[in-house]
Amino acid sequence: MSFNTYGRMFRVTTWGESHGPALGATVDGCPPGLRLEPGMLQHWLDRRKPGQNKYTTQRREADEVEILSGVYEGVTTGTPIQLMIRNTDQRSKDYSEIAEKFRPGHADYTYWMKYGVRDPRGGGRSSARETAARVAAGGVAREALKALLPDLRIRGAMVRMGAHEARRENWDWAEVERNPFWTGDARAAALWADYLDGLRKSGSSIGAVIEVTASGVPAGLGAPIYAKLDADLAGAMMSINAVKGVEIGAGMGAAELTGEENADEMRMTQGGPVFTSNHAGGVLGGVSSGQDVVVRFAVKPTSSILSPRATVDKAGRETEIVTKGRHDPCVGIRAVPVGEAMMACVLLDHVLMHRGQIGDGGGEVG
Amino acid sequence: MSFNTYGRMFRVTTWGESHGPALGATVDGCPPGLRLEPGMLQHWLDRRKPGQNKYTTQRREADEVEILSGVYEGVTTGTPIQLMIRNTDQRSKDYSEIAEKFRPGHADYTYWMKYGVRDPRGGGRSSARETAARVAAGGVAREALKALLPDLRIRGAMVRMGAHEARRENWDWAEVERNPFWTGDARAAALWADYLDGLRKSGSSIGAVIEVTASGVPAGLGAPIYAKLDADLAGAMMSINAVKGVEIGAGMGAAELTGEENADEMRMTQGGPVFTSNHAGGVLGGVSSGQDVVVRFAVKPTSSILSPRATVDKAGRETEIVTKGRHDPCVGIRAVPVGEAMMACVLLDHVLMHRGQIGDGGGEVG
Amino acid sequence: MSFNTYGRMFRVTTWGESHGPALGATVDGCPPGLRLEPGMLQHWLDRRKPGQNKYTTQRREADEVEILSGVYEGVTTGTPIQLMIRNTDQRSKDYSEIAEKFRPGHADYTYWMKYGVRDPRGGGRSSARETAARVAAGGVAREALKALLPDLRIRGAMVRMGAHEARRENWDWAEVERNPFWTGDARAAALWADYLDGLRKSGSSIGAVIEVTASGVPAGLGAPIYAKLDADLAGAMMSINAVKGVEIGAGMGAAELTGEENADEMRMTQGGPVFTSNHAGGVLGGVSSGQDVVVRFAVKPTSSILSPRATVDKAGRETEIVTKGRHDPCVGIRAVPVGEAMMACVLLDHVLMHRGQIGDGGGEVG
Amino acid sequence: MSFNTYGRMFRVTTWGESHGPALGATVDGCPPGLRLEPGMLQHWLDRRKPGQNKYTTQRREADEVEILSGVYEGVTTGTPIQLMIRNTDQRSKDYSEIAEKFRPGHADYTYWMKYGVRDPRGGGRSSARETAARVAAGGVAREALKALLPDLRIRGAMVRMGAHEARRENWDWAEVERNPFWTGDARAAALWADYLDGLRKSGSSIGAVIEVTASGVPAGLGAPIYAKLDADLAGAMMSINAVKGVEIGAGMGAAELTGEENADEMRMTQGGPVFTSNHAGGVLGGVSSGQDVVVRFAVKPTSSILSPRATVDKAGRETEIVTKGRHDPCVGIRAVPVGEAMMACVLLDHVLMHRGQIGDGGGEVG
Repeated sequence: MSFNTYGRMFRVTTWGESHGPALGATVDGCPPGLRLEPGMLQHWLDRRKPGQNKYTTQRREADEVEILSGVYEGVTTGTPIQLMIRNTDQRSKDYSEIAEKFRPGHADYTYWMKYGVRDPRGGGRSSARETAARVAAGGVAREALKALLPDLRIRGAMVRMGAHEARRENWDWAEVERNPFWTGDARAAALWADYLDGLRKSGSSIGAVIEVTASGVPAGLGAPIYAKLDADLAGAMMSINAVKGVEIGAGMGAAELTGEENADEMRMTQGGPVFTSNHAGGVLGGVSSGQDVVVRFAVKPTSSILSPRATVDKAGRETEIVTKGRHDPCVGIRAVPVGEAMMACVLLDHVLMHRGQIGDGGGEVG
Repeated sequence: MSFNTYGRMFRVTTWGESHGPALGATVDGCPPGLRLEPGMLQHWLDRRKPGQNKYTTQRREADEVEILSGVYEGVTTGTPIQLMIRNTDQRSKDYSEIAEKFRPGHADYTYWMKYGVRDPRGGGRSSARETAARVAAGGVAREALKALLPDLRIRGAMVRMGAHEARRENWDWAEVERNPFWTGDARAAALWADYLDGLRKSGSSIGAVIEVTASGVPAGLGAPIYAKLDADLAGAMMSINAVKGVEIGAGMGAAELTGEENADEMRMTQGGPVFTSNHAGGVLGGVSSGQDVVVRFAVKPTSSILSPRATVDKAGRETEIVTKGRHDPCVGIRAVPVGEAMMACVLLDHVLMHRGQIGDGGGEVG
Repeated sequence: MSFNTYGRMFRVTTWGESHGPALGATVDGCPPGLRLEPGMLQHWLDRRKPGQNKYTTQRREADEVEILSGVYEGVTTGTPIQLMIRNTDQRSKDYSEIAEKFRPGHADYTYWMKYGVRDPRGGGRSSARETAARVAAGGVAREALKALLPDLRIRGAMVRMGAHEARRENWDWAEVERNPFWTGDARAAALWADYLDGLRKSGSSIGAVIEVTASGVPAGLGAPIYAKLDADLAGAMMSINAVKGVEIGAGMGAAELTGEENADEMRMTQGGPVFTSNHAGGVLGGVSSGQDVVVRFAVKPTSSILSPRATVDKAGRETEIVTKGRHDPCVGIRAVPVGEAMMACVLLDHVLMHRGQIGDGGGEVG
Repeated sequence: MSFNTYGRMFRVTTWGESHGPALGATVDGCPPGLRLEPGMLQHWLDRRKPGQNKYTTQRREADEVEILSGVYEGVTTGTPIQLMIRNTDQRSKDYSEIAEKFRPGHADYTYWMKYGVRDPRGGGRSSARETAARVAAGGVAREALKALLPDLRIRGAMVRMGAHEARRENWDWAEVERNPFWTGDARAAALWADYLDGLRKSGSSIGAVIEVTASGVPAGLGAPIYAKLDADLAGAMMSINAVKGVEIGAGMGAAELTGEENADEMRMTQGGPVFTSNHAGGVLGGVSSGQDVVVRFAVKPTSSILSPRATVDKAGRETEIVTKGRHDPCVGIRAVPVGEAMMACVLLDHVLMHRGQIGDGGGEVG
């Protein structure tokens, strides 16, 4: 990872600001010979798109993606794929206040201290709008993974909103596509709808936990020691706006387990070795075990709220700020497709790296 | 991060196996002109060294570090610094059982599936012994940071062992150096001593949470979007053996906060802007804010326990395994100096990157 | 350098095909706070632009560059700068012949063997049109260098066309801007004009040697051992289409010198140490010496000629091919601004790397 | 390439100074499952070893290589391979003169200006002794290539010493192993012996041209645009001490060819497409064509000569220096095995990258 580039073999460089003319992703290292059309990417972008229901920001963006290079007659050529999304709803607005004041919990102050210059319009580069480019790039990764690992399935869901956790006993993956929160617990969805409506009206916001699972991952992916699959997933998820914690498998809860509880025992089946539990979250020693890869991450509540907050301005004066714009009461919702996209990018990067490192080799059991 | 190398400007490549002739770190990108002598590194290695009390593995290793290059007359020259630690206590032992069977919770199975060959002696490359090399490299990073950021202070501590959490109201940083658990809560230390003694005798093990704090970090470090300071810290900590979760600031708990609770407000002082709270853990938008950088990570219990565990062998036969070797009932203890070392490496890497990116520039307030 | 990305701190990823909708460069790592407007880049693009005289391809391209990100109110923000150039003159043409046959001396065969798919229109990604993106990115590098090294001056020139070498005794840098060959020898320019006219009419082509010089480079740039300044320049120039040889200073001729002839002696002046000759081309041990950095590279003749050439097709049949399109009788001409652009990118990358490595340190004399 | 690391997938970090305790190479990314023993590397080190005849430096070094990691029971495990060579002949010598004066043509001045500190003993890190580590790493690369590309053959030779060029019509590859100059022209070898003897006695030195050829390279290696096979070879060869020019195929001479002369035509054979000439040096568009990859590089004469040279010292005083140590009258001789080693490293890196990028795909003809 270098500045604005993610990955080693599958390299994604995102670019663009919230209110600039366009944003996008330069995708290098996509395998040649894959069918790729804008519609395949649009499907995923539409999931992340703002303004789809009352629980997400009311900014209206078509988020229409153009493929400017790397594809010939609908097939990838192995050369860089440029994905561009025009910004269309850059509402004319007076940014002079937030150009001077630092909004608490935002990158305003740190970008200023780092760069000495910043684009204040909608948060500029630090806006969650940057994640649209990730979702587009993740769509490319998915097409490559479909060809390379046909059994792979990546699924994301919201498993907690504030104090309210989804319950595994209510879980139904089909439910995830039916509610605005991408959760598999229909009862939680109903509860959250009421809860979030209240927050939205009061101009407040709330955090969330997202879980992304990949099934059908073959054993052997991951490049120890410093490109471990779980280390890469942790870095990738933490790079998403507003994420403050990342867990693999048992996660922070692993601290409370004994060795007996934590060790996932192995048994033999017709199809090869299986594990009787998955505290490891599908990764041992930084390398995938063939179990589901399970990652969770916490998204903080957006700091754009209606209550005035104490802050300072560039001149060093104490002041207050109220964020009046269009915002997400629970930004975690739209982080679901972003987490899925990062999972896709990390896995593809590791599949290609592994192929380079090991070729068709690796061990067998039985 | 590439395979066995960590960092961009300050690059650390660790090498070596648990029972090979030696292990070490190739450190490239250390600034020239720093005083560096083996004793400066030995101090940190001695903290991590096994066999110092009954709560850590009884393997006896001097962990004596030699500097083979990059230093002339006790001063760094800007060229690669080779740090070598000879392995001395490679007990002659019969490894034939673990060469055939996969120990649950270890990398045995995944390394085998990845590489098709593995060094079974003490876990080979996947042994926690690799972290000695990190601690040595971290010692080099500390010397560079001392010169570049004289106010920086990196401190690690254990804040949870199993169900037992240290209490902030009991906290005293001076206490950390006085107990074998590196915790600042003397009462917790006493409790943990009893608890761990019981676990040790029964051949069991337990997880832990480690917290590493850096104070005196200037605002502006971090290279968004994909080399954010927190993303790098998450990747670095997750790359440590047995780590399953990483948190920055409020961490996973951020999911339960409202925007009002979570936003760290700003006030002005003589010394510049300050924050009234630190839910952000010192990082906003991937860039340091000048507050303490606070990272926590969960270390799972070692899977090397005396109770027999169900597993399979290379031939695909179901079997059981008991790990009889010398092991740590709570590997989290020795993860404290490792976490500190990774914090040092990440911060130095970002200081050098920032210097290259921005020079002496950046913004000011007031 | 990774696939389509050049540089470490100043990272340029070029993308796009000769006849796709657009091409461009994603520029990451540009210092913040610089004035940057499209016109500043257009100046350099216009030098490389085809169709400006009868000696270059008659393809008509405006080569108009758009800045899509990374600039706010005409000032760079430190975030990625997306430069896009629309392709406008994609003449409707039948590409079915060259889609099947491999043109000798082109990348048709090797791209096919590598990727198993290729965009045959105008050579696709392997077209010299890719270098427009380099020139745009080089324009950004120049603006940064102007701020960081005000005394730096980068100048390129053609010093040989076929058997005809420009003579140093006739050299006048002002002349370079006055003739279509960017040479400083007016007599050579006159001779070459006649010579090239003949070649153009007969549908033939000829090679050339380009020299790029940077004066005002401070001593100390270059990161030994594998990121030496000269090694990077060699890689950068060799990456330009059709380049087959690269020389620094005395170049290949150094093989014919004795140690006495080759050693550049040093004397002391008011302004510091100077050298009495420059066989080293401004680089010693991979690090700049403060002398002019002098690089030369040979550009082969384009293989797109009117004489039929023997070749094979995808089906493995022997056949012939004549390249009828619009081509450059001496592609070396348009390589001059490209070589200058690469020099700018390499130098900026090294300035930023050096700043990160060494800060304000380094040695002094006297 | 980053500071002291070469390669992307096959990563070689060399470390160590001429007169430090040891030097070596940290080799990461070597495929697992290969037989590897010190003797396999020693073979190549012995070719480069100093003091073997009167034409090379009289320093006596065993150059014995130890493998400290990455190999278990004589087989590579996929983990980093640490190669260490102890320095044994560090003659006690007074370095006070060259610690103060800058030797013309050496890196003394530039290292001083860059780092502000340097190890003057034998040139420290800038000594050609660093290339011993490259040769050891190249030996590892050769073993991997033997397994991956059984038909590959890498051969180096000296083709010019000063004004005296070897003649192709006299060429016999078997002759290369029979003379101290690694040349295939026995007559040239005889002539050069006399010539060099004279130079040696007079304390002078001379440059040389080395050619390295790889046959059996499959079509398709190379990662355009900025990791082209030829760009990487140019960078790799230019990174060797004292190299001032690099050519691929026709090289600088390509500038003097017409398109008709330069285009390598293709014909069809039972075994697939062949070329009727090889001006391209086996690389088209940055990708290998299946022809021999042919690289030449010029090595300047060593600047360590007996004639006094004018120079300055750290204090800025004008002075003279005579280099009295043990030196090579033609360092090009020992560059032959180094060039071969770099060819091996570059090719293996590209084989692994290609495997990652393309897998078993790619195009076919016929």
